[in-house]
Amino acid sequence: MENNSVSPLPDATGQAPMAEFDKTPPTPPENNLPMEDLPPPPTTVTIQEEKEKEAQSEATHRHYEEDNEWGCGSWFEYTLVVVLASVLLLGSLGLTLFWVIQYRGGFAWREDPKRQFNLHPVLMVAGFITFSGFSILLYRICRCCRRIYVKLLHTVFHALAIPCVALGFLAVLDSHNLSQPPIPNFYSLHSWIGLVTMGLFAIQFVVGFFSFLILLCCEGATAGFRAALVPIHASFGLTTFVLAIAAAVSGLTEKALFTLGDAYSEWREEGIIINALGISFIALAILVSFAVRSNTLKSDVKVAVADHM
Amino acid sequence: MENNSVSPLPDATGQAPMAEFDKTPPTPPENNLPMEDLPPPPTTVTIQEEKEKEAQSEATHRHYEEDNEWGCGSWFEYTLVVVLASVLLLGSLGLTLFWVIQYRGGFAWREDPKRQFNLHPVLMVAGFITFSGFSILLYRICRCCRRIYVKLLHTVFHALAIPCVALGFLAVLDSHNLSQPPIPNFYSLHSWIGLVTMGLFAIQFVVGFFSFLILLCCEGATAGFRAALVPIHASFGLTTFVLAIAAAVSGLTEKALFTLGDAYSEWREEGIIINALGISFIALAILVSFAVRSNTLKSDVKVAVADHM
Repeated sequence: MENNSVSPLPDATGQAPMAEFDKTPPTPPENNLPMEDLPPPPTTVTIQEEKEKEAQSEATHRHYEEDNEWGCGSWFEYTLVVVLASVLLLGSLGLTLFWVIQYRGGFAWREDPKRQFNLHPVLMVAGFITFSGFSILLYRICRCCRRIYVKLLHTVFHALAIPCVALGFLAVLDSHNLSQPPIPNFYSLHSWIGLVTMGLFAIQFVVGFFSFLILLCCEGATAGFRAALVPIHASFGLTTFVLAIAAAVSGLTEKALFTLGDAYSEWREEGIIINALGISFIALAILVSFAVRSNTLKSDVKVAVADHM
Repeated sequence: MENNSVSPLPDATGQAPMAEFDKTPPTPPENNLPMEDLPPPPTTVTIQEEKEKEAQSEATHRHYEEDNEWGCGSWFEYTLVVVLASVLLLGSLGLTLFWVIQYRGGFAWREDPKRQFNLHPVLMVAGFITFSGFSILLYRICRCCRRIYVKLLHTVFHALAIPCVALGFLAVLDSHNLSQPPIPNFYSLHSWIGLVTMGLFAIQFVVGFFSFLILLCCEGATAGFRAALVPIHASFGLTTFVLAIAAAVSGLTEKALFTLGDAYSEWREEGIIINALGISFIALAILVSFAVRSNTLKSDVKVAVADHM
C-alpha cells in the first residue's frame, strides 16, 4: 500500500495515518454536529464492508481531498484562509523590505556592518516565515494534487529557506563582529530563541528528508515508521514556525529599542511599521496553525461520523 | 444525554463532541499504528452494536478517561507532562518573583512608580501563565474526575486570574502615569500584543461562563450549541495562552534593554535570569499545547481504530 503521506496533522494522536486511509463516502458539513442531530444510522453497513470499499479504491492515486467533497462553506473557508495567509506571508516580507530600505538605509555586505545587519531581518523573515509558511500551507493549498508532488514541493520550499536562514545568520554574526567595538553574540533572549528555532528547523529538515523521501526506496518496509512519524513531524514543524515568530517578535522589540530608543514612544512611522510587522507575524502564527489543523476537518468528521453510523 | 463537556480539543474539527460519546472498548497503545499492523478485524461487530453498547453506558456519569484505560506508557507520559508543566508554571512565577525582589527592589503601590511597575510582570505571569496554565492543564490532570467538577475548577482558576491581570494592568498604567516625566502608554509591540491577549481572555471568559455554565439551566436545548462551541473555546483558549507568552517574551526583552541596557550583553546574572524566564515560557507554550492535544490521544485512536476494524 502506498503510504508516502506527510499531510500535516498537528496532534500526535496517531490518528493521522488512519484517517488518510478512510474512504467512506463524503458527509455533508452539517454532520459536524453532536449525535442527536445525525440522520438515523444505516444499520446494515458493517465496518468490514467499509474496509472492502477502501481496498477497492487503493489502486488509484491518493489525493489530499476530492473536488466533489467540498461544500460551499468549505470553499469559502479555504479561499479565506489561503488568500489571507498568502497576503500576510508576502505582505510581511514586503513590509520588512520596505522598513529596512526606507528607514534603515538598505543593504551592504562587509563594508558597512549596520547595513549588513539589515539583511538579517529580511532573510530570516523570508526563510523562517514566508518560505516555511508557504511550505506548510501547501498541504492546505494543494488539496487536489498528488501527495508525492505536494511532498516534493514542501521539500523544495524548505530547501529554499535554508540559504536564507544561513545567510541571515551569517549577516548578523558578521555585522556584530565587524562593528567597532564588536557587539557580543548570543546574550539576548531573542538570540536564544533563534538558536533553538534553527536547531529544530535543521533536525526537522534532516529527519523529514531522510524519512519521507529517502526511505521511499523501500516503501513497503518503512510504511509503518513513516506513518508514525507524520504527526510528530507535523507537530514539530508547527512548533518551529511558532518559535520563529516568537524570535521575530522579540527581535523586532530589540531592534525598535536599539535604533529608535525613546523615539519609539513618540508614535513615529517606523515604530508603527515595526509593531504592524509584529502583529502580522502573530496573525500568521494563528492563521497557519488554524489552516493546517482544519485541513484534517473533513477526514476527521468522516471518521467520527462513520464510527457512529 | 448529558453534554456538558468542555474538554479541550484544540482543533476546530467538530470531532471533539463525537469522540466524547465514543464508548468502544479500550484499545491497547500498540493499535496506534498503520492498518497493516492491526490484528485481523472482528468482522461480526457492526457499527450498530457499537452504538447499542454506547447507549447502555450512558446512564453512568461520564469521566474524562477511565482508570483501566491507562497503559504504562500513558502513565509515564501523563506524569512527565503534568510534573514538568507544574514545575515550569510554578517555577517561572517563582523566578519572576525572585528577579523582581532580588534585582528590581521589590514592590510598592503609588509611592514609587519604578517599584510599582514590578507588580506588572509578577501579576501578569501569575494571571496569564500560572493560573491560566493550570486551568488549561486541569483537563489533563483530572482525567478521572467528573466533568462538571473539572469545569467548575477551570472557571475558578480563570476567575482567580482576572484580579491578577486587572491589577497587573493597573500597576503598569499607574507606574507610567506617575513617573516624572510620564511614560507614554500603548506604543510598543509588547503593549499591542498584551491588549489583544487581554481582549481575547475577556471574550473567552464571558462566552465560556455564559455558554458552559449558565446555559446548563436548559441543558437539553443547548447541548448542540455547547458541543459545537467546545473546540472553538479550546482553540481560542490555547491561542490566548500562546499570545500571553508572546507578550511575556517581548515584555522581558523590553525590560532587559530598558533596565540593563548595554550591561545585558555582559552576561550578568539578571540578564541570564530574564532569558531563562523567557525560555521557560516558550517551553510552557509547547508543553501545554502538547498536553492538551495529547489529552485526546486515547479517544482519537479509538475512533480511528474502530472505524477500520
